[in-house]
Amino acid sequence: MLLFGETYHHPNILYRTGFLVPDPVVVVDRGGVDTVLWVSALEEGRARKQASVGEVRSTMELEIPAPRAGGNEFDGWAALVTAVCREHSLNAVDVDAEFPTVLADHLRQNDVDVRPRTDIYQQRRRIKTAQEIEWITSTENAGMAALQKAIDVIAAAEIRDGLLVRDGRNLSSADLIFAVESHLLDKGNSTVDSICCGGPESSDPHRTESEVIRAGLPIVLDIYPFDKRTRYWGDMTRTVVRGTPPPEVMRMWDAVLEAQQAGLDAVRPGVNGRDVHYACCEVFKQHGYGSLPKPYRDIQSDARFIHGTGHGLGLEIHEYPRISEADVVLEVGDVITVEPGLYDPLFGGIRIEDLVVVTETGCRNLTTLAKTFRLD
Amino acid sequence: MLLFGETYHHPNILYRTGFLVPDPVVVVDRGGVDTVLWVSALEEGRARKQASVGEVRSTMELEIPAPRAGGNEFDGWAALVTAVCREHSLNAVDVDAEFPTVLADHLRQNDVDVRPRTDIYQQRRRIKTAQEIEWITSTENAGMAALQKAIDVIAAAEIRDGLLVRDGRNLSSADLIFAVESHLLDKGNSTVDSICCGGPESSDPHRTESEVIRAGLPIVLDIYPFDKRTRYWGDMTRTVVRGTPPPEVMRMWDAVLEAQQAGLDAVRPGVNGRDVHYACCEVFKQHGYGSLPKPYRDIQSDARFIHGTGHGLGLEIHEYPRISEADVVLEVGDVITVEPGLYDPLFGGIRIEDLVVVTETGCRNLTTLAKTFRLD
Repeated sequence: MLLFGETYHHPNILYRTGFLVPDPVVVVDRGGVDTVLWVSALEEGRARKQASVGEVRSTMELEIPAPRAGGNEFDGWAALVTAVCREHSLNAVDVDAEFPTVLADHLRQNDVDVRPRTDIYQQRRRIKTAQEIEWITSTENAGMAALQKAIDVIAAAEIRDGLLVRDGRNLSSADLIFAVESHLLDKGNSTVDSICCGGPESSDPHRTESEVIRAGLPIVLDIYPFDKRTRYWGDMTRTVVRGTPPPEVMRMWDAVLEAQQAGLDAVRPGVNGRDVHYACCEVFKQHGYGSLPKPYRDIQSDARFIHGTGHGLGLEIHEYPRISEADVVLEVGDVITVEPGLYDPLFGGIRIEDLVVVTETGCRNLTTLAKTFRLD
Repeated sequence: MLLFGETYHHPNILYRTGFLVPDPVVVVDRGGVDTVLWVSALEEGRARKQASVGEVRSTMELEIPAPRAGGNEFDGWAALVTAVCREHSLNAVDVDAEFPTVLADHLRQNDVDVRPRTDIYQQRRRIKTAQEIEWITSTENAGMAALQKAIDVIAAAEIRDGLLVRDGRNLSSADLIFAVESHLLDKGNSTVDSICCGGPESSDPHRTESEVIRAGLPIVLDIYPFDKRTRYWGDMTRTVVRGTPPPEVMRMWDAVLEAQQAGLDAVRPGVNGRDVHYACCEVFKQHGYGSLPKPYRDIQSDARFIHGTGHGLGLEIHEYPRISEADVVLEVGDVITVEPGLYDPLFGGIRIEDLVVVTETGCRNLTTLAKTFRLD
C-alpha cells in the first residue's frame, strides 16, 4: 500500500503514522510492522521522535532531483513516489481513493500498476477503540461547554425592536462564535468554523452567520471542535429561541425533537443506517414535512428535511459511515451523529444533533446537553 | 475543466467559486463566465447566495443514486462526476493535479478523456491583486500583534533554575500558544497550529512545543494565521532568548540575521527563486554552516540550514512558487516568505521569517515586527 499526502487533511496517513505534517510524505505499508515513512530532511528528526512506524527514511537518500526542482511541485512528487516504488521494488501498489491522478498516471507510465481503493483502513478506523472513544468524549465535553457559553450569551441578552441586544448594541453571530471558540481554545481545542446563525439565514444548514440575531426565530448553534493534540473531533447542535416564536416554528421544533428521538431510538448494531434515516423522515411525514428520499420527496411543505441524518466521526468530522440513504449496517463501536433538521426559508432552521457510540444494546449518547428550545 | 472537492482544502475551487463548503462539489469551468457549480440539496440555497459562478445547479437534477447510496462515498462521487460530464456533453476534461485517481479511472472507463494538469489557475493565483495583498496584509498584521503577545509573556517571565517561570510555575509552550491564538481569534483570525518551541526541541523546524521553556536557548515563534472570512493567510517567525545564550547560539543568530537580509536583498522581479535560496546558503557557508543544496551539503557543521528559503502564500499557507532549488523566476505580485534558519540538535533552532510582496524595484516587506533576539 502506498500513501501520499500531508496529514492535516489525509486522515488515513495520520491514522497510520500518528505524525502531523504540513507537507506531503510517502508511506509504504505492507500490512505488517515494517511500515516505512519517507519524509524530507526538514521533517526527519521530528518524524523519528513522533511517528509510529517501523522505519523513518529521508527522501535525501533517493537519487532524485529536489522534490520541487521543476518549479512545479507535482513533477517533484511524481519523481519521488516513482523512486520510492523502485527502492522498495514495488510493481503494483494499492492507493487511497484520493491518490492524485497525476501521480497515478506517472507511476503507470513507469510500469507500476496503481489500484485505487476506496476502503483503505475504513473498517479499522470505523470501529473506535476505548482510547478513541475517550478522546472523542473529551472533545465533545469541551464542545458542550463552549456551546453553553453561546447559550448563556443569548439568554442574557435583551430584546429590543425584535433583535437581541447586549451592552447597548446588536448581538451578532460573530459575538456568539467568539464566545464558543475562545472557550474551545482555552481547553486545547480548535475548529475550522462554527455555526451561530439565526432567522431566515439559518434555513441554509451550513450558513455560519446571520446579519442579525432576531427574537422569536430559531438560532442554530452547531459546534464541531477538534482536540489539537489527539486530532479527534466532536460535533453537536442545539437550536434555541428568545422571545415568542410563531406557531409554525413551535410545530417545527416539536417535529424535530420527535424525529431526533426516533433516530436515536433506531440506532443499534445490525440496523441499516438507511433505516435510521427513514425513521426520522417518517416522523417528519407524520407532521406533514417532506424529506429528500424518494418516498418522502413529494410531500409538499415549506419546511423540509434537506440533508442526511448523520455521519461517522473520528479523525475526520465527516467520515464513514454516513447515516443517509447509504446502505450500511451499524456495528458496535461506530461513533455517529443523529441530526435531523427542518429548514423553512421564512423562519429559518431547527436542528438537534447528538453524537452517539453504538453499543451492544443500542447507543450511548455522548451529548448530554439539555435540549431546551425556549430560553425565556 | 472539471474540478471536484470540498473547498476548505481545495483552494483552486475556493478561488474559482468563492464558496466555502465542507463536502465535495463539482465545478465545470469552460474558461468563460458560464462556470457551473454543482452542489447537494443541502448547499443549494447558500450556494445561490454566496458563490461567484455563472450558474448553481443541484445534483438532485441528475438521475443518479444518492451520492452515498453504495455505502462507500467514492462510488457515489464517481457516479456524480460521470453524470455531470454526460449532462455537459464532455468527452475530455482537464482536471487538477489532485483529482482523485479513483474518479479519473471511472471517468476513463466511461469514455471521458481525463487530463491531469499541474498548473490550473497557477499563474492567476500566483500574481496577487491589490485586493488580495490587502487581505494578506490584514492577516499578517493580526499575526504580528499575536506574536508580540507571546514575546510580551516571555519578556515578563522570571528566570529560575534555568527555566522561564510565570506566576510561580514553569512557562510552557501551551501558555505561549494560547497567548498567540486567543489574540488571533479576537481579531477574526484562526490557524491550524502555532510553533512556540524552545531549546533543543526547536532544532526540528516544525515541532510546535517543547517540554519546557529554557533560559539561554532560542525560542522559535512561528505564527501562520488565516482570516476566517477572506481565507487568506499570513506567516512570520521571530526567534528570541531570555538570559545569556552561549557564544555558539549568538554566532548562529548573527548568521541567520545576515542570511535573511541577503535573501530579502536578492528578491526582485526577474530573479530566479533558486538564487534567492543560494544567497542565503552562501551567507551560511561564509559562517561555516552547511545547507541542503549540493554545493553546500558537504560543509561539516553542527548547526545546519535544512529547508527551503521560502514559499508562496495566499489561499494556501504553502503555495506556488517555492523559494528553494526550484527553477522559478520571480514576478511582480508574487507574495513569498523569506525564512532561512539554522538548527543545532544541542542548542535548538533559529529562524527569521518575513513575508514580502515582489515589486517593480525589489520587494515590500509586510512583516514590520522588530528582529530582536535578546529580550534582556
